[in-house]
Order: sequence, then structure tokens, then C-alpha cells
Amino acid sequence: MKKLVAEFIGTMWLVVGGCGSAVFAAAYPDLGIGFAGVALAFGLTVLTMVYAIGHISGCHLNPAVSIGLWAGGRFDGKDLVPYIISQVLGGIVGAAILYIIITGSGKEIGSFAANGFGEHSPDGYSMVSGLVSEIVMTFMFLIVILGATHSKAPKGFAGIAIGLSLTLIHLISIPITNTSVNPARSTSQALFVGDWALGQLWLFWVAPIIGALIAGFVYKLVSPEEK
Amino acid sequence: MKKLVAEFIGTMWLVVGGCGSAVFAAAYPDLGIGFAGVALAFGLTVLTMVYAIGHISGCHLNPAVSIGLWAGGRFDGKDLVPYIISQVLGGIVGAAILYIIITGSGKEIGSFAANGFGEHSPDGYSMVSGLVSEIVMTFMFLIVILGATHSKAPKGFAGIAIGLSLTLIHLISIPITNTSVNPARSTSQALFVGDWALGQLWLFWVAPIIGALIAGFVYKLVSPEEK
Amino acid sequence: MKKLVAEFIGTMWLVVGGCGSAVFAAAYPDLGIGFAGVALAFGLTVLTMVYAIGHISGCHLNPAVSIGLWAGGRFDGKDLVPYIISQVLGGIVGAAILYIIITGSGKEIGSFAANGFGEHSPDGYSMVSGLVSEIVMTFMFLIVILGATHSKAPKGFAGIAIGLSLTLIHLISIPITNTSVNPARSTSQALFVGDWALGQLWLFWVAPIIGALIAGFVYKLVSPEEK
Amino acid sequence: MKKLVAEFIGTMWLVVGGCGSAVFAAAYPDLGIGFAGVALAFGLTVLTMVYAIGHISGCHLNPAVSIGLWAGGRFDGKDLVPYIISQVLGGIVGAAILYIIITGSGKEIGSFAANGFGEHSPDGYSMVSGLVSEIVMTFMFLIVILGATHSKAPKGFAGIAIGLSLTLIHLISIPITNTSVNPARSTSQALFVGDWALGQLWLFWVAPIIGALIAGFVYKLVSPEEK
Repeated sequence: MKKLVAEFIGTMWLVVGGCGSAVFAAAYPDLGIGFAGVALAFGLTVLTMVYAIGHISGCHLNPAVSIGLWAGGRFDGKDLVPYIISQVLGGIVGAAILYIIITGSGKEIGSFAANGFGEHSPDGYSMVSGLVSEIVMTFMFLIVILGATHSKAPKGFAGIAIGLSLTLIHLISIPITNTSVNPARSTSQALFVGDWALGQLWLFWVAPIIGALIAGFVYKLVSPEEK
Repeated sequence: MKKLVAEFIGTMWLVVGGCGSAVFAAAYPDLGIGFAGVALAFGLTVLTMVYAIGHISGCHLNPAVSIGLWAGGRFDGKDLVPYIISQVLGGIVGAAILYIIITGSGKEIGSFAANGFGEHSPDGYSMVSGLVSEIVMTFMFLIVILGATHSKAPKGFAGIAIGLSLTLIHLISIPITNTSVNPARSTSQALFVGDWALGQLWLFWVAPIIGALIAGFVYKLVSPEEK
Repeated sequence: MKKLVAEFIGTMWLVVGGCGSAVFAAAYPDLGIGFAGVALAFGLTVLTMVYAIGHISGCHLNPAVSIGLWAGGRFDGKDLVPYIISQVLGGIVGAAILYIIITGSGKEIGSFAANGFGEHSPDGYSMVSGLVSEIVMTFMFLIVILGATHSKAPKGFAGIAIGLSLTLIHLISIPITNTSVNPARSTSQALFVGDWALGQLWLFWVAPIIGALIAGFVYKLVSPEEK
Repeated sequence: MKKLVAEFIGTMWLVVGGCGSAVFAAAYPDLGIGFAGVALAFGLTVLTMVYAIGHISGCHLNPAVSIGLWAGGRFDGKDLVPYIISQVLGGIVGAAILYIIITGSGKEIGSFAANGFGEHSPDGYSMVSGLVSEIVMTFMFLIVILGATHSKAPKGFAGIAIGLSLTLIHLISIPITNTSVNPARSTSQALFVGDWALGQLWLFWVAPIIGALIAGFVYKLVSPEEK
């Protein structure tokens, strides 16, 4: 139960921090943080949470991560569903906090930080490009997670490597899909935006999960024996 | 006494570094550091001080942090008042240094780096939005602090996680309240700006302390047993 | 064989992350990540891979690094050719992924993230300036790599130092040559751009290798004895 | 002798990286790295060198640091002069490399990355403001250095804290004096610019040394006993 509360709080923070920085601060005139600031924010939600709750729940904060860790033989299949439910609920509460702050000032959420492709891609990338991008990005995210938490990797540094890999992923792919690699994050935004965001949500479940599964199986091939 | 001097110097640095970067460098034409640079600066004041003085005073630099650590059972209540006094005094001296540099060049401090809501919010967020934001941000700041300093968290990394969590908090919420989560930092600026900044100062004591207290109590529920 | 797969995946990631961020996100209107974001991305590809695969292959991801480590007495000469082949192939597959994402949306690759000098330098630097820059940058890159992995350096931190040294190198020299210091990265882009990029490719093999060789020999002079 | 070569290479890198990023990349149209990128570059020169050569020479790279460490009882006075000479020479060679790259492309060095006050301050700050800023910044730089290398501070993290404290110092004070806190760095630029830069150079020896001496003496008062 402590694990599920930790995943809930952590995923809430991922949405408040990552999506919140995008919604509040990215496009502020002249002084805004831009895509680079949003990329840093997403990464830091994970980096900070790994040190805060990693020793409680493992700090997945992402259904694709839980599934990839299961595929890589690092996570027990019977915990998959409760973890994913906690992550999605945490994400939704995070989005609700953003919604309250925005509407409490008489502003509109617009397209929030929803993920999209085609005409809803920030730079007009197609569905196929979005699929390739999300699969490759999630694949590499899981390679970093699986590798940096291996027993032969330097102790304690995994949080830095994993958090900053999420920053890196956003530095690359925000223009393509607004970057998901995380179905809970995408769902949290789509529920408030509705409409096209819900209609395109399937891709942000399917692609990250495919990428994570491939990573889990590939990593078994290159992984050295555990100490 | 060494602890109080350390808290004094550390909080002075938080104000010189965080507020100073905002006042001197954020809006410099074309080359300015923007909100993202200010966010990095605030976080680095804490990151650097954790390694410099963490082994002396614990490096709180913030009345809300001291109160949250007390609520979480990590800090002795009898040290609360002396710590808070040192932090506020250090913040004021930090602000005085900024004041001397600015006025020593015949410039005006304007609104300094004061915190505000309503018409004094950088992007026009209401009092309610400011309250929600400051409570949530301080809550999460303390969750990171309490979690990353737990005996089961990786040793030595707490300074990175805690410092960068303050960067993250600023990446999200500068447009809302100019980001406080720290009553000493807010007080240091309000005293020099006077007027509206003093009139709105109450929120930047009340909200961070509420957020910190909730975090202290919530963390006890999810916290694993100490090693 | 596991080592070669690791080098392949890592170099693929270096190109997808470093060159990809440049191509997709650097010049996005208003919100783009600029040269600083690209610099961060290149560094983070290496930082994340050191923790993910460093314990498998040593995480060179770069023919100049392999050659410099050989010159410094840290890498067996008989592994040089297989490592370099894996790196070049990984880079090419990385570039192919970028190519698919771009052309799959009906866009053009333009000059991709190819390296160049003279009229193909981002800021019009000459061939001589490009040579000096690439030699000095690769020299210092190898000094950091050789020093930070010395047995007397703090354990575990090499990935942070090495990754961020690549960020630093890009912060300095993107305007000069678009920054290579890595023949595999340059080759991957030149093959897709063809034309002038292939014609100038020789410099981005010659200069990094010269810089790396000098570093290997110089480092032996200053290096303390191994523990 | 190995120590002096290490200080020479390290200070050369500080100038190539910090001043070089300012000269080449800060003001590149639209994509330039700005003051924040330069701040990051200066910090990363130190961060990377601490891990690369800290175990050889201690990685001072700065006469004020050597003097502050001597005042704090951490550095032998008989090594002061040789260290300072190596640092100044390394800085000059670093500046010469920048000079060759710039003039080798038919460009002018302009004001290089020289430090200044009054009409040569980037934002018009007076001599008194510059003095206060340089003294306070160097004071805090040494507090971080002395604290983070104390035997009770977490092992291995000093390079991160010290390097990023230099980033922080630049985030604050580039607009005031172009940020020195390092007489070797200032001298390296002033020699090539001549004229006003040489005329104002005294301040960038006097102020950093004063700040470092105060820090050395103050730190003794708050420092806990060594383990």
C-alpha cells in the first residue's frame, strides 16, 4: 500500500512538474522557459522522485516503465495492474491541480500539455513519425532504466541517469508529439482536453508499451550477469 | 552557534543567488537568463550549500523546511525559533547586498524579486491560485527533502535531489507567484519593496508552512522504517 | 559480442539524441532549444549511456575515444577495429531513424546536423579554425575521460564528468564546426547529406583522432600511478 | 611538476571553455547560448576538471582559490607562487587558442571576454558595485570549496558542488562585471584586449583575493572538527 501511495504522489508530481511547467512557463513572453525548460522539468520530476521514493516503490511513475521492467524480469507481474492504476490516478490528480490553478484565475486550459500527432503535433509530424518517435524514445528510456539499475552499474547514480534521460527524450521529441513515453501522463491531459486528445490517446498507450516491451527483451540479450 | 552562522550564510546565499540572478540577469536584452536561468540559480544555491554546510546545520535555509522537518520528526522543536531567526536575518543581509550593488550604480530596485499574487503575479494569477500553488510546491519540496534524506535513500545524493527540486519548483511556478516556498526569501524582498509586497507577504508565510506541515504528516504514512 | 551491441546502441542514441535534438528542436520558433539545448542533449546521450552500458563495453561511442584510450594504454588494440565498426554502424542506424521520422512527415533533411567548415561552418569559420577547434576539443575530451576514469578519481562520477564535458565542448564550438569530436557522428550525417558534407568529412576523422592521440600520450606524463 | 602541468591544462580549459563559449556562442543570432549557457560552460570547466585532475593537483585553476585555501589552512604557502604562475600561463595559452581560432577566420576579438566595470560593465555597473560583487561572489565560491571538501562532507560530490557554484556565480553577476572571481581568467583576456581591460585589471586581482581571504578566515570559525 505504501508503494501505491508513493507511485500516486510521484506520478502526480510528474504531471504537475512536467505538464505544469509547459502550461505555465514555456511560452511566457521573453522570459519563458521554452522546450528546453520543459525538458529539464520533466527530467527533474523523475530525478527528484527516484531519490525521494525510489526506496519505497522503485519510482516507476509510468505504466510503460512498469511493463518494461516486467518484460526485463525486474518487476513482478502481479503488481502491474495496481501500479498502473495508481499511476493513472496520480496523473489525473496532478492534472486536476493544474486545472484548479488555471481556472481559479479565470484562464482557459487550451490544449493543456496534451500529446498529439498530425495536425496536433507541435511541428506537424505525421502519425507514422509519432509512432516511430514514441517507440524509439521509450525503448531507449527503458534501456537506460534497465542498465543504470543493474547490479554492476555504479550505486546511487541511477536517479541522475534516468531522470536526465527523460530530459534528453524531451529535448529531442517535443516538436514531434509533445513527448509522451508515458501513458499515464498522456491520459491525465487528454481527459481534461477531451475531443481530439482523447481520440489520439491510443497512440500514447500503444507506442510506449511496444517500445518498453522491445527494450525489456533486447536488454536481456546484452545484459551482463548480475553480481 | 556554528549552526546558526551556517544557516545565516546559506540563506544569505539563497537570496543573493536566487533573487540576485532574477534582478540582475533575467531580463538582460537578448542574452538574459530568463525564468529558466533563475530557476537553475535558486536550485544551485541550495545544492551548493547542502554540500558546503549540510554537515554543520542540515542546510534548511528556509523556515518552512525547518517546520516541515519538525513535523516529520526529523528536527528538534527547541531549535525552530533560533533557526528561523537566523534564516530571516541571513535573507535580509542577502537582500541588502543586492540593494547596495544596485543603488551603488544609481539604479532602482523596482519590485526586486518580491513575491505576489493578483495584479502582482507575473502572469496575473489570483490569490487562490497562488495559495494552491505555494501549498502544493512546498508540500512536494518537503516530500523530496524527507525522502532523499531517509536512511534508505542513496547516501550523498540528497543535495542534488533537493537542490534540483527547487529548480523544478521554479520552472513551474515563477509565472504564478514569482515562486516563494520560503518565507525568509519573501520577507527579505518585501522589506525593501515595502507597500504591496509587505501587504501580500502573509500568503508567503502561511502557504509554505501549511504545505510543509502536510508533507511532514503525510510522509510519516509512506515512510519505510529507518535502517 | 555484447560489447559490440552495446556500442552500437549507444552510438545510435548519441546520433538520435544529439543530432536529433538539433534537427527537430533547435530552431523551433520562439520555444526552440537553441545551441545550449543541443549541447545538453549531446552530453546527456553520453551521461545516460555511461551508467546504462559503461559496465558492458566501457561506453566509448566514438572512434576517437577508442583510439585515445588505446593511446593512453587503457584499451586493447585488437578491439579497435570491431569497436569502430560498431560505432559507425550504430551512428548510421541512428541517422536512418531521424531520416524516417523527417521524411515520414513529408519534410526535408536539409543539411541535417552535418559538420562543416568554411561556408558550411555555422558562423563562417575557416578550415584552419575548424582543425584547431576539433583537435583542442577532442584533446580535452580525452583528458577528462582518461582522468575521470583513473583509479584515484572518485568512483562512479566519471559518467557525469564525461557526459557534461561533451556538453561543454558543444557550448563552445557549435558555431565553429557544428561540433564533431566524433567521426562516427559526422559520418552518419554526411552519408545522408552527401555532396559537401562527404567532401569535408575527412577533417572530422583526422582532427578528432589527432587530438585523441595527443591526449593519450600527454596524459601518460601527468597521470599519477594507479592505485 | 605533475601538479603544475595539471593546473596549467585545467586553467587553459577554464579559459577555452568559459571565455570561448562567451566569445563564440553567446550572441549567435536566435540560437545563441546567452549568459545562461556561458554560466553553464564556466561551471562545467571546473566540474569536469575536478574529476579529471583533482587527484593530481587539487584542481584550483584560480589564484584566488589557491590563496583562499591557504588562508583556510588547506594549502601549503610554499606552493602558492608556482601554482599561480601555472594558472596564469595556462590562462594565457587558453586565450591564445581562442585568438588563433578567431583571427584564423579573419574575425576580430573585439572585447573578447574581458572583465570590466563602469562603462565596460555589460550593464553599466559602477566600480563600487563591481568590487562588492566580486568580493561577495569569491567569498561564497571559497565557502563552497572549503565546505564541500571538508572531511565530513559527502565523498566525491565536491566537484559537482564547486563546479555548479561557479555556474551560479555567473548566473548572478555576468551583467555586473562579466564575472571574474579569477585573476588568471581576467589576465588572460586583458593581455589580448589591452587598453581599458589592462587598466581595469587591478580590480579583478584585488577583489577576488580579498573575498577569498575573508572566506578562509570565516570558514575556520564555522568549520566542524575534521574527522
